[in-house]
Amino acid sequence: MISEIAKKEGIKERKLSRLVAEGKVVILKNSRREIEPVAIGKYMSVKINANVGTSPEIASLEKELEKAKIAVKYGSDTIMDLSIGGDLDEIRRTLLKKIDVPLGTVPIYQAFIEKKLDMDPDFILKIIEKHCKDGVDFLTLHCGITRDIVERIATRLIPITSRGGSFIASWIIEHKEENPLLTHFSEILEIVKEYEATISLGDALRPGCLKDSSDVFQIQELLTLGKLVKIARKEGAKVIVEGPGHVPLNEIEMNMKLEKKICDEAPFYVLGPLVTDIALGYDHISAAIGGAIAAIHGADFLCYVTPSEHLGLPDVTDVKQGVIAAKIAAHAANIVRKGYLDRDTLLSKYRRELNWDKVFELSIDPEIKKKYPSLKDRKECTMCGKYCAIKIVDNYLKKVKK
Amino acid sequence: MISEIAKKEGIKERKLSRLVAEGKVVILKNSRREIEPVAIGKYMSVKINANVGTSPEIASLEKELEKAKIAVKYGSDTIMDLSIGGDLDEIRRTLLKKIDVPLGTVPIYQAFIEKKLDMDPDFILKIIEKHCKDGVDFLTLHCGITRDIVERIATRLIPITSRGGSFIASWIIEHKEENPLLTHFSEILEIVKEYEATISLGDALRPGCLKDSSDVFQIQELLTLGKLVKIARKEGAKVIVEGPGHVPLNEIEMNMKLEKKICDEAPFYVLGPLVTDIALGYDHISAAIGGAIAAIHGADFLCYVTPSEHLGLPDVTDVKQGVIAAKIAAHAANIVRKGYLDRDTLLSKYRRELNWDKVFELSIDPEIKKKYPSLKDRKECTMCGKYCAIKIVDNYLKKVKK
Repeated sequence: MISEIAKKEGIKERKLSRLVAEGKVVILKNSRREIEPVAIGKYMSVKINANVGTSPEIASLEKELEKAKIAVKYGSDTIMDLSIGGDLDEIRRTLLKKIDVPLGTVPIYQAFIEKKLDMDPDFILKIIEKHCKDGVDFLTLHCGITRDIVERIATRLIPITSRGGSFIASWIIEHKEENPLLTHFSEILEIVKEYEATISLGDALRPGCLKDSSDVFQIQELLTLGKLVKIARKEGAKVIVEGPGHVPLNEIEMNMKLEKKICDEAPFYVLGPLVTDIALGYDHISAAIGGAIAAIHGADFLCYVTPSEHLGLPDVTDVKQGVIAAKIAAHAANIVRKGYLDRDTLLSKYRRELNWDKVFELSIDPEIKKKYPSLKDRKECTMCGKYCAIKIVDNYLKKVKK
Repeated sequence: MISEIAKKEGIKERKLSRLVAEGKVVILKNSRREIEPVAIGKYMSVKINANVGTSPEIASLEKELEKAKIAVKYGSDTIMDLSIGGDLDEIRRTLLKKIDVPLGTVPIYQAFIEKKLDMDPDFILKIIEKHCKDGVDFLTLHCGITRDIVERIATRLIPITSRGGSFIASWIIEHKEENPLLTHFSEILEIVKEYEATISLGDALRPGCLKDSSDVFQIQELLTLGKLVKIARKEGAKVIVEGPGHVPLNEIEMNMKLEKKICDEAPFYVLGPLVTDIALGYDHISAAIGGAIAAIHGADFLCYVTPSEHLGLPDVTDVKQGVIAAKIAAHAANIVRKGYLDRDTLLSKYRRELNWDKVFELSIDPEIKKKYPSLKDRKECTMCGKYCAIKIVDNYLKKVKK
């Protein structure tokens, strides 16, 4: 496994093994699954994730499966099943069977949906174990939201935007007890280790608007996550850390560096970041801006955001748009981070030759050519036509050479 | 004029006057037009421009007018008419009459189309004067592409991607003479000064692919533009500088700082930058990433890029998509640059209240609400439904307060 990844990432095996041993690179793959593993972390190319999943009122397994397939087709490296409607076990198991990239889940969703606030730690652990047994490769667990934060969180503009975070916060308030995912962290470690599943330490306190970004609640949760990273590593469990959220342009770099420092370079999985609150319907663009900046400053794994974010369950088109936007951000960062410029340069060579077939073949969405049928039979495009700069210059450059 | 702008930009009049006198802020407005002026430059909010214009085969004045109106509706601060098909005088004059934001043109297009390589310096000057007389507020003039560059440019992957640049390069090669826009720069200054029109020093050598970014040709042109800025300022002419182009993420900041240094903080108008060559059909996203980063490092004016870039003449939908993407980038930068956070925070306050009407009203494209009709009559969205994090947390926070 290490040798294949080392080859793919262009890194020496020994170096990769060391990074994995240190927990600075995490390999997403449950021991029960037969998929190509995905490496996340230091010196690795930036990866992207696409969320699929039913909601209480739109619960079609077929639709979610279709979304997952579209996401993988357009380059999503992993899929998360965030289903909260329909037969959750069936959906998860079907996705695990039909989709051959690492799959992530959020077990607290199922625990809360099945038992509401009667879910007790044992029940939560059972759900986590069930997911691991089914083959889930990584599990978001919101271990860092603590009772003292919940009691002070009302001062925020948007206290909690994380769904899992809201389930745990309400449990904490109802039971007047500490977060069960935190109090039972060592039991959780035992479970995930058995299946080589990865814990993705959720950020229940990620800011839901720019006003709340990088505030004391977010940073306090990060400090807790940093402690849990140390514990998990000591126990030999695989762990990555989730991050914001809504973050203004000038705080992204700081957020990345802070996570790397506090969590000792644990792989960082960011949800956006979104650089404005007003881009409703276009949050995939807002997230692509934030994600690209995050990725050149340390983020290792970008969760896509679709145009439907904040507004409704994404449809298949939204999923495709979200994946492509995240892929643009990750690719732009990998050009810098990994020197992956060959594809761009080859495409540009064909662009100079006005060889549209090849240009489309190398582009991020080859199907876009259907929108431009006139390019099929001609050298120019409808933008400049006979005044095509590339053509004019090439014609005249021949004169210079003579 | 100064007092209105100072008020709008939240800056003291005296300070603004000094910046204008130094040429670090340029006010776009031809003395013959009755429009609200737009200030570009240091300490100003970042502005965006949308290009419209016919092509040889798609030449409908009505369509271009419609695009310009859509662009202004979605927040474009200026419009450029890049028409190269149909009756160029009529199109330009109609846009000037019907669109009440600053209008830019590229006079060399008309000169080349009407006379091809027989255009002589006098003819070019006449076209420039005609545009100024008509009321054009800013004119792109590719003064920085010189004969010695043209003779060496063939080594680039994509020698010239700029249409105006290609016209001048072919003229230089054909006539074996220096760029007429450079040799006649002082005459040009006399003309633009008379009408208070602004010169936008075009970047004919902007890189057309990442491989060519920040190369000697681009930087040599920038050095020439820096000299011309000094000359223009000395003569009291208004001047801004155009910049790249295709630029990898890690070179954007450097490019912005270099322009500010070489051109003594002349307002910088960037075309993108695009952070990858492979995002065909999605270059508005690639440009939004580059534009946002550029704007926090010094770019003052972002030219939009539409999804049709590199592929064909944009249609009305492309124009809307391009404007919104550029607006997201500019707004995200203005949050940092100008502290413009009020709209985001108010929208987020309404989001916490699940007051969708108000949320849409404040969002970048209020029409997006048509895509989510179910939000009209209910508090939750179809993403989480009854498991809405905001609702759950607010219900439980009431318990904490008790």
